Amino acid sequence: MSKVLIFGHQNPDTDAITSAISFSYLQNELGHNTEAVAFGKPTEETQYALDYFETKAPRTVTSVSSETDQVMLVDHNEAQQSAPDIDKVKVLAVVDHHRIANFATADPLYYRAEPVGCTQTIIWKMFKENDIDVPKNIAGLMLSAIISDTLLLQSPTSTTEDEKAAHALADIAEVDLNSYGKDLLKAGTNTKNKTASQ
Amino acid sequence: MSKVLIFGHQNPDTDAITSAISFSYLQNELGHNTEAVAFGKPTEETQYALDYFETKAPRTVTSVSSETDQVMLVDHNEAQQSAPDIDKVKVLAVVDHHRIANFATADPLYYRAEPVGCTQTIIWKMFKENDIDVPKNIAGLMLSAIISDTLLLQSPTSTTEDEKAAHALADIAEVDLNSYGKDLLKAGTNTKNKTASQ
Ligand SMILES: [Mn+2]
Ligand SMILES: [Mn+2]
Ligand SMILES: [Mn+2]
Ligand SMILES: [Mn+2]
Repeated sequence: MSKVLIFGHQNPDTDAITSAISFSYLQNELGHNTEAVAFGKPTEETQYALDYFETKAPRTVTSVSSETDQVMLVDHNEAQQSAPDIDKVKVLAVVDHHRIANFATADPLYYRAEPVGCTQTIIWKMFKENDIDVPKNIAGLMLSAIISDTLLLQSPTSTTEDEKAAHALADIAEVDLNSYGKDLLKAGTNTKNKTASQ
Repeated sequence: MSKVLIFGHQNPDTDAITSAISFSYLQNELGHNTEAVAFGKPTEETQYALDYFETKAPRTVTSVSSETDQVMLVDHNEAQQSAPDIDKVKVLAVVDHHRIANFATADPLYYRAEPVGCTQTIIWKMFKENDIDVPKNIAGLMLSAIISDTLLLQSPTSTTEDEKAAHALADIAEVDLNSYGKDLLKAGTNTKNKTASQ
């Protein structure tokens, strides 16, 4: 059976990139054969987090059906935000925190959505439910996504679940939530002041 | 705020009726104000389980939007199987084990689907994740739905998760899985030999 590819939405943000990494790690620990991929390069914010926690960016792809027939989606569900050939593969699982729209399957699947601020908050719960330890670097990436999606727990979409996850992940990642958070968000803001060639 | 109504699909089977009961109990324990209702009367199989575990059938309704603006769905998601006025209310949560189709929301929601044999197997996991005890009568109803949907763990859709849940619930309900299971399925078969007036 071909490897299951796991990916976030097109024009990936920090949650889309790092949720593919953390969810792939979790699935592999549970005995599945998966690889995180991405529909685009990391933003500067995401790259800051990847560098800080010494983790390689997921391989960039432009389609999936030439190399697999089974996928898992993170941080999105709508077809127009997904692989352009999403209709040619079987969606085994979705983990997301957005509304559901333009999504349908032929078969039963695993679908986990919660109205929280970040996909990683849900993935953090799944690690705990399955009693799997989060490695330090992956905890740092998960934390980075929560900081990014909730603007350091200040956005209107941020919930107490995001807060709990962020504090627990900051402990595992051995960073100070507020000072790392400000540095990460600043790295993201830099992007806007640079030209495309940078 | 009006009471949140929780219901399964039209022409309810044992899973549709009893998942509304167990999920409403769980939600109320978690501090929400919900009521289980049903789009139809219990079948003979379902009534056997309700009688055995001394539980009242959910109130029968034909629409929901006249009495609430918020609902939760169990054992289905497709609009054509749901409340006829489902488009007039907000779906806060779905717990289901079917494919996803003809389902969309305007806002983020809680959606929990797993490719298992019965909705109650998922609800059983949610009780455990939230560290809430299942009362004896509700355990019996949850077990009844698993027996019904998986034909006593023999259907091709039955999984090891359904098995684990069934055994744990039989213990709490204090029944023998196999002998109760055969009696329940037999009560369901009786229906076919009776006329509509019975
Ligand atoms: Mn995103
Ligand atoms: Mn996100
Ligand atoms: Mn059903
Ligand atoms: Mn069912």
